[in-house]
Amino acid sequence: MLSDGTIIALATPQGIGAIGMIRISGFQALEKTQLFFKPKGGITLEKLSPNHTVLGTFTKDEEIIDEILLTYFKGPHSYTGEDVIEIACHGSAYIIQKIISCFLEEGVLPAQAGEFTLRAYLNKKMDLSQAEAVADIIASESAEAHRIAMQQMRGGFSKGMEVLRQQLIQFKALIELELDFSEEEVNFADKSKLESLLKKLQHDISELKNSFAYGNVIKKGVPVAIAGKPNVGKSSLLNALFNEDKAIVSPIAGTTRDSIEDTLIIDGVQFRFIDTAGLRQTDDIIESIGVQKAKEKVIQATVLLYLYDKSATVEDLVSEIKSLHHEKLHLIVIQNKIDLDPKGYDIEFSKQIAKKLDPKINLKLLGITTIDKTTLGPLKTNLLETVQSIGNNSALVINNSRHYHALNQALASIEIVKEGLKNDLSGDLLSIELKEAIEHIGTITGVIDTDQDVLGAIFSQFCIGK
Amino acid sequence: MLSDGTIIALATPQGIGAIGMIRISGFQALEKTQLFFKPKGGITLEKLSPNHTVLGTFTKDEEIIDEILLTYFKGPHSYTGEDVIEIACHGSAYIIQKIISCFLEEGVLPAQAGEFTLRAYLNKKMDLSQAEAVADIIASESAEAHRIAMQQMRGGFSKGMEVLRQQLIQFKALIELELDFSEEEVNFADKSKLESLLKKLQHDISELKNSFAYGNVIKKGVPVAIAGKPNVGKSSLLNALFNEDKAIVSPIAGTTRDSIEDTLIIDGVQFRFIDTAGLRQTDDIIESIGVQKAKEKVIQATVLLYLYDKSATVEDLVSEIKSLHHEKLHLIVIQNKIDLDPKGYDIEFSKQIAKKLDPKINLKLLGITTIDKTTLGPLKTNLLETVQSIGNNSALVINNSRHYHALNQALASIEIVKEGLKNDLSGDLLSIELKEAIEHIGTITGVIDTDQDVLGAIFSQFCIGK
Repeated sequence: MLSDGTIIALATPQGIGAIGMIRISGFQALEKTQLFFKPKGGITLEKLSPNHTVLGTFTKDEEIIDEILLTYFKGPHSYTGEDVIEIACHGSAYIIQKIISCFLEEGVLPAQAGEFTLRAYLNKKMDLSQAEAVADIIASESAEAHRIAMQQMRGGFSKGMEVLRQQLIQFKALIELELDFSEEEVNFADKSKLESLLKKLQHDISELKNSFAYGNVIKKGVPVAIAGKPNVGKSSLLNALFNEDKAIVSPIAGTTRDSIEDTLIIDGVQFRFIDTAGLRQTDDIIESIGVQKAKEKVIQATVLLYLYDKSATVEDLVSEIKSLHHEKLHLIVIQNKIDLDPKGYDIEFSKQIAKKLDPKINLKLLGITTIDKTTLGPLKTNLLETVQSIGNNSALVINNSRHYHALNQALASIEIVKEGLKNDLSGDLLSIELKEAIEHIGTITGVIDTDQDVLGAIFSQFCIGK
Repeated sequence: MLSDGTIIALATPQGIGAIGMIRISGFQALEKTQLFFKPKGGITLEKLSPNHTVLGTFTKDEEIIDEILLTYFKGPHSYTGEDVIEIACHGSAYIIQKIISCFLEEGVLPAQAGEFTLRAYLNKKMDLSQAEAVADIIASESAEAHRIAMQQMRGGFSKGMEVLRQQLIQFKALIELELDFSEEEVNFADKSKLESLLKKLQHDISELKNSFAYGNVIKKGVPVAIAGKPNVGKSSLLNALFNEDKAIVSPIAGTTRDSIEDTLIIDGVQFRFIDTAGLRQTDDIIESIGVQKAKEKVIQATVLLYLYDKSATVEDLVSEIKSLHHEKLHLIVIQNKIDLDPKGYDIEFSKQIAKKLDPKINLKLLGITTIDKTTLGPLKTNLLETVQSIGNNSALVINNSRHYHALNQALASIEIVKEGLKNDLSGDLLSIELKEAIEHIGTITGVIDTDQDVLGAIFSQFCIGK
């Protein structure tokens, strides 16, 4: 993956548009461009001043391929840190392919996925977590996902990681100091001080690690399963939330068999709603596969909207909810069709359900009717509150499983140090274990040398041209 | 359509990419940008020098939306002739929508399709036919379509039109001069000189007009129908040309029923190949619809590849070819499966077919087998020769039906002038008619004021952002 040649790629999306932008990076960028670019009014290419946009023609063998705008960024003051040429041409597939192949014929290499950003990282224009955030920024579809990615790209996240790493380094120095004087008298007060320092570090890293639950659902969309008995109005709720007929609705139990899924952004947070087959014993083979799938969807969900109407007994509903529940699930139990109940939303009935459930369950109770969309307002509010309650106590948010994994490994090392301290383990061993923790944190921003395979895995997920 | 407000649009295609480019044009472009852009290192916006690309942040209510590259083009030295700001941001749908809505909230207007280029035309940065060529450039998919569009955009076409118009203006001046002296003696020699001048003009415009047949197929792809009896290998030929299994091939007559169509570029010229149902009487309802469609496709085609094997008689084949033929069709009669014929390609047989057809038909004879792809080489050569023979005697090529229509009207006026001259019609009337012809030619480049409706029709075919 790591060549030092000059690379080229289309930086804008494929497809027809007014403008396409082609980017070239590397030590031959200017030299190769000179073969094809004729500035209007005859400014010589040698005089192209950095960061200056020049109109001209892109010409091959006397044939004008296009009129283009060309901008030259002189390394290291460019995205990659190398010499970069940006060509804005007409957004024609023919022209773009023609311009790129002119460069390829001259030995310029087609850029691999993420190679521009990889070079930016290797040339120290950004650290590794910032580079990863570039891909997240491009992929972010909601305000909150964008905010987290932007904080990371701008280096706020890296600063937090560096603070953590420095604390660990200081702690390691303390341990080693302790070590030097260990031949003399061991001070008990110092040990308890060390223990409390370690506890603080453990707490900070744990909190950061726990923020992954939040960061991950924000990045990928919060999975919200809609489940309940047949005909309680699950598909009607989905349609009402999306304001369109996504799912077929009929009074026939068993209408929905496939899981229907789509994303909706509420107040900047993206939710992935999943409408599932109604839960019941059935002889219909396709429907029973649907019921099985419904249960799997609930297992993967972060939030369960459990819908009911009062045709079922409290006991029956409670036993179904218990069978669906899992530890990480946030539960919103909803009486649907409150317009059909003479009592409207029957709060007493819902409280009876709540009473029979484990009080530790994250539970909210609600009454709605899809006939009156104003009743969906509180549902949306509840969904947003639920998201906010998901381990978001940390100022920094982890949204990347590589970072999560590194924090986890750092925590494991710290746990060993903590145990060792308790058992008066030798300072040598503690110091080695602390070094491990420091390195794990270091891999997040890449302050320590990063394995080529890891780099390959990270940047191959980028789009080509970035 | 014609507002003088400041407009904004995404100039690059929709979709995920490394970079998205947003363009703002109008007198408030710089002022509105100032509300959101903070150059890195604190260069003040007032100091933004034209054509200079600056890195900075796009910020709304203290929230950083993105890090962007911003380039300012000061009117009239810009694409539209107005002040233009180009923002290169990360290619995220969220960021692009966010940046655009910041401007919209400040009263900047969403650009309509083609509005940037319309403004370029209105500000005399290009004439009308050049503006039209911008859309053709973006849409062009082959080298030849690109060459014609580029010639038009660069103004070569406009120059040709202006030469024509000036010749007509001079001719009108001559007629009017003649008019002034008409009270005196009419010089017969002058009249014949006028007639030959007019004939020359008529010839030039006709030739230009006829180039539309070429320009149009080059722009849209040359339609090539593949027809013949069932099982002569039409679908096999299509698959062989495309090197993939596009059409289902089976030994069962009537396998192909829908017309299958795709484009292929041969030596820079785009062809649209259409495989059709085998021609026969059939009781199968779907197949008989297919046969009907096949005949319609031949009517729309410029080239017909008529395939046969020697299982049919010469008379039968000739009568089928005659029933398919139409005036504008170029015919390539092909013996397929020459590997199965003991004689190979039976030239005598094919000459018998040719002998019984109208000698005026544009006819080529060929033998191929899809088993051996080298036999397709001569077919491709024949196709290219056929395209070159389509009225391409003119140095300039018309590829736009609006231009074709204008030339047609100009020709009609010239025809009237010619008749009038012959019948010694009054110079007044001739002059009026010539004025018509001059105006028709003028509409092509828009040197005369162009109707708002015409402008609307032209630019609404553009993509938004151009």
